[in-house]
Amino acid sequence: MVIGVDFGTLSGRAVVVRVADGTELASAVHPYRHGVVSAALPGSDIPLPPDTALQIPEDYREVLRQTVPKALAASGVPAERVIGIGTDFTACTVLPATADGTPLCELPGLADRPHAYPKLWKHHAAQPEADDINATAHERGEPWLARYGGRISSEWEFAKGLQVLREDPEIYRRTERWIEAADWIIWQLCDRETRNVCTAGYKGIHQDGEWPSRDYLAALHPEFAGFAEEKISHPLAQLGARAGGLGARAAAWTGLPEGIAVAVGNVDAHVTAAAARAVEPGQMLAVMGTSTCHVMNSDHLADVPGMCGVVRDGIVPGLWGYEAGQSGVGDIFGWFADTGVPADYTAEAERLGIDVHELLSRRAAAQPVGAHGLVALDWHSGNRSVLVDHDLSGVIAGLTLATRPEEVYRALVEATAFGTRTIVGAFTDAGVPVRELTVAGGLIRNTFILQTYADVLRRPLNVIGSDQGPALGSAIHAAVAAGAYPDIRAASAAMGNVHRDVYRPDPRRADRYDELFAVYTDLHDHFGRGGSDALHRLRRIRNAAAAR
Amino acid sequence: MVIGVDFGTLSGRAVVVRVADGTELASAVHPYRHGVVSAALPGSDIPLPPDTALQIPEDYREVLRQTVPKALAASGVPAERVIGIGTDFTACTVLPATADGTPLCELPGLADRPHAYPKLWKHHAAQPEADDINATAHERGEPWLARYGGRISSEWEFAKGLQVLREDPEIYRRTERWIEAADWIIWQLCDRETRNVCTAGYKGIHQDGEWPSRDYLAALHPEFAGFAEEKISHPLAQLGARAGGLGARAAAWTGLPEGIAVAVGNVDAHVTAAAARAVEPGQMLAVMGTSTCHVMNSDHLADVPGMCGVVRDGIVPGLWGYEAGQSGVGDIFGWFADTGVPADYTAEAERLGIDVHELLSRRAAAQPVGAHGLVALDWHSGNRSVLVDHDLSGVIAGLTLATRPEEVYRALVEATAFGTRTIVGAFTDAGVPVRELTVAGGLIRNTFILQTYADVLRRPLNVIGSDQGPALGSAIHAAVAAGAYPDIRAASAAMGNVHRDVYRPDPRRADRYDELFAVYTDLHDHFGRGGSDALHRLRRIRNAAAAR
Repeated sequence: MVIGVDFGTLSGRAVVVRVADGTELASAVHPYRHGVVSAALPGSDIPLPPDTALQIPEDYREVLRQTVPKALAASGVPAERVIGIGTDFTACTVLPATADGTPLCELPGLADRPHAYPKLWKHHAAQPEADDINATAHERGEPWLARYGGRISSEWEFAKGLQVLREDPEIYRRTERWIEAADWIIWQLCDRETRNVCTAGYKGIHQDGEWPSRDYLAALHPEFAGFAEEKISHPLAQLGARAGGLGARAAAWTGLPEGIAVAVGNVDAHVTAAAARAVEPGQMLAVMGTSTCHVMNSDHLADVPGMCGVVRDGIVPGLWGYEAGQSGVGDIFGWFADTGVPADYTAEAERLGIDVHELLSRRAAAQPVGAHGLVALDWHSGNRSVLVDHDLSGVIAGLTLATRPEEVYRALVEATAFGTRTIVGAFTDAGVPVRELTVAGGLIRNTFILQTYADVLRRPLNVIGSDQGPALGSAIHAAVAAGAYPDIRAASAAMGNVHRDVYRPDPRRADRYDELFAVYTDLHDHFGRGGSDALHRLRRIRNAAAAR
Repeated sequence: MVIGVDFGTLSGRAVVVRVADGTELASAVHPYRHGVVSAALPGSDIPLPPDTALQIPEDYREVLRQTVPKALAASGVPAERVIGIGTDFTACTVLPATADGTPLCELPGLADRPHAYPKLWKHHAAQPEADDINATAHERGEPWLARYGGRISSEWEFAKGLQVLREDPEIYRRTERWIEAADWIIWQLCDRETRNVCTAGYKGIHQDGEWPSRDYLAALHPEFAGFAEEKISHPLAQLGARAGGLGARAAAWTGLPEGIAVAVGNVDAHVTAAAARAVEPGQMLAVMGTSTCHVMNSDHLADVPGMCGVVRDGIVPGLWGYEAGQSGVGDIFGWFADTGVPADYTAEAERLGIDVHELLSRRAAAQPVGAHGLVALDWHSGNRSVLVDHDLSGVIAGLTLATRPEEVYRALVEATAFGTRTIVGAFTDAGVPVRELTVAGGLIRNTFILQTYADVLRRPLNVIGSDQGPALGSAIHAAVAAGAYPDIRAASAAMGNVHRDVYRPDPRRADRYDELFAVYTDLHDHFGRGGSDALHRLRRIRNAAAAR
């Protein structure tokens, strides 16, 4: 048996998995006590700046203490039969720590300093830093830039690190290790620092064995010159490798035997590729949740404009791993369900015993394609691919006095499907063909959403055969780290689970969607590629108003 | 005493007014039994085409029977003391009738024919006809086109008439009189047909004593050649003139003395200018309700791009009357309050004992200008001025996961204010300066909306001193028709009521609004002036989907 632990945005989940065939025996979930810290630090009423999203490290440890023993007990498996544990994390979720791995926010006197806390992936306040990082890299012709679709995201390690330096230099100076939570949790498990190739590549600008140069970093800020060398650099470990043995402290937390294999840290979307048996070249996996992450292997290297990144060995050793993403998907549907749906809808959903999403989906599905006359831009949380711009925002066009809530909901669903189509098109145009598409994540429960995607994308969709893809993927990595399989591809074939061609496109609906997609592309390019700077001006006006 | 009767979109209202000083003694309202007929004809379940908006003539007669006796009784005024009655109507609300004034929908066998019914002002299904009317007029260089800002609206008499001819030629052939409801109701009151200069000019393309030529009309459709000459043409009567004496039938309906003065028919917004003492050159009146109508007198003639029209004697005899408009204002706020506000807001409004508009307004007003980061285009019901295009639709840009309902509401309010600013700018740029701005209509009860308008427009707002401006205006016209005053301007000065400078602009807020208005103008011109045909494509896609 192996244990996989998935650290999500709001909670952590452990699953007990049989090594032989990937059967999931039991699982347990624990919500983070502090969730996402966006309004004010715990115990404080000082408002945090807009777009801030922090987390509390102790919430992560608590997941280990709560979920592993519970899942194990529920499975009926004796702890002695567990041979390894693997984890995955949201990324880039990154924190400042001391040389022994203590998060700075846990040091005396630093609990009231926002920059001492982990910055969650969706902390979007470092866009000015990302802009400078990109402008300087363009000017200097930095060779690594093309590996990131031409733009480094404000979500990543360097932008977030530069924000700390600019806004709280003392915290920056006291940061001995700037570390992904994905690697920090491994440190907690096996009492030694490791760094995985995946986050180092996708979130840390590590390419061809090198970090960005001191000269480049100094051009951003004199004190930033040593950022990579001093705070990040560490020998990198391959995915599926053994980070170490489970330490005494973590063994006590989890009830697992001391010394069992701990797999190298990993990222939620990337481990899910193994769980969904989508690790061969051309098999794109879309993990659709609050946001969507696309990962795909290929045997060759290409520059895909607007991708998040391409990293050698980034998903499985021996292949080029590509990543792209949409920063808001389920988040957008959730926002609309929470703030845009009137009382009679909520009451009707209650009467039918379904949630508001299901009600909206049923009503929306009944309409012919395009009958709502709407097109939306799915940028409520910015655009990760292919525009890589978190100062963009959502748009909806075509509203009339007859527009109904389910029509707006449908337009938002369609917008995210158009966003995926834009990404798939960018890969195909760059010579990295997408042979098949598999979906995973929380949104796979909504058949209306997936049928819309199949129609918009004009391709069949495979669906992962697990409700807890990342945790299963982490368990698969644990099995490899424990030596039960020779590599991730073999373990994925034995332990992964996928249903093929579950949703097939309807050609007539697809034709209609082509027309709407053309309008989407018109708006996408106008607002996103410089035709109009209206959205950037609105963001500046908003930020200036908030600062007054 | 005089009686004014206002025929609105959903109800009619009568008021009893003292001739000496305009004091309103009592009033009564009666909702139209059938309201606006958009889904299906009464007693039918055949769906009407999109954008159809019809009404039932008997609902208008019922207003006379119900409201006049009630208002009179409530006022305590004996009927013998009433010297005249005046009315006003929505426009262009137009119907096909026989030579004796019988609406075609009341003829045996025609009750199931949609084109036999009055088409309400907001019937927007004749846009293809309006497009042809405009294209043909441009090609032929028709001299009257400039009097309508360069475009004839789909809301007006000729577009609606051409739609009848194209879609139901038999109804068109049986139409002996194509008549504004404003004139038709006068026919009901005094048993003779009259036609007023106001609707003839603004809605009927009557300019410099002539209708569009037979040649021009034939170019639209061979059978349309005689449309003006045979179905509309009639000697025109000046506003404030006596149309005739109250007939025996209408005297019986209303309880008023037979033979008292009936004023010539008129339009709701235009009569309100008299009620608000806004009849002198440069005094613009904005009647803000479901839609907004702007009327203003000037002593000279100019071509204002995108105005609805300029008509000699169109508001008061002896001046050039200008009209502009916004097709959706309160309608848009109502749509949002009905369909876009979640249950916790509705519950909170109930708890506070206020309506949802008031709740949204209070919460919205608390924010600094621009803090929502949003700009909307107020085209949910198309754009009357300055684009004159009802195939446009609403847009909202700048949405994020933090966007709250009150912020969207505020953006919609601001969008309508920006629309007004665009109109005021068009007049000023064309050399017809707006010296002062007075507001009337149902929205004057919302202080947040009016303060926003004052800030956006950077000018103080006068507010009409009556809750029933159109009905008071009609009463003023009745007083003139009865000979109590020499003309409308004199009667307005004596009987009208206005509070000056009630809302004053805040210069700091106005500066912030300048920035948002620049973004509005960017989107307005991009989507409205040909930068992108996205909204037109969405409308075509919608209509094609509805037709399938």
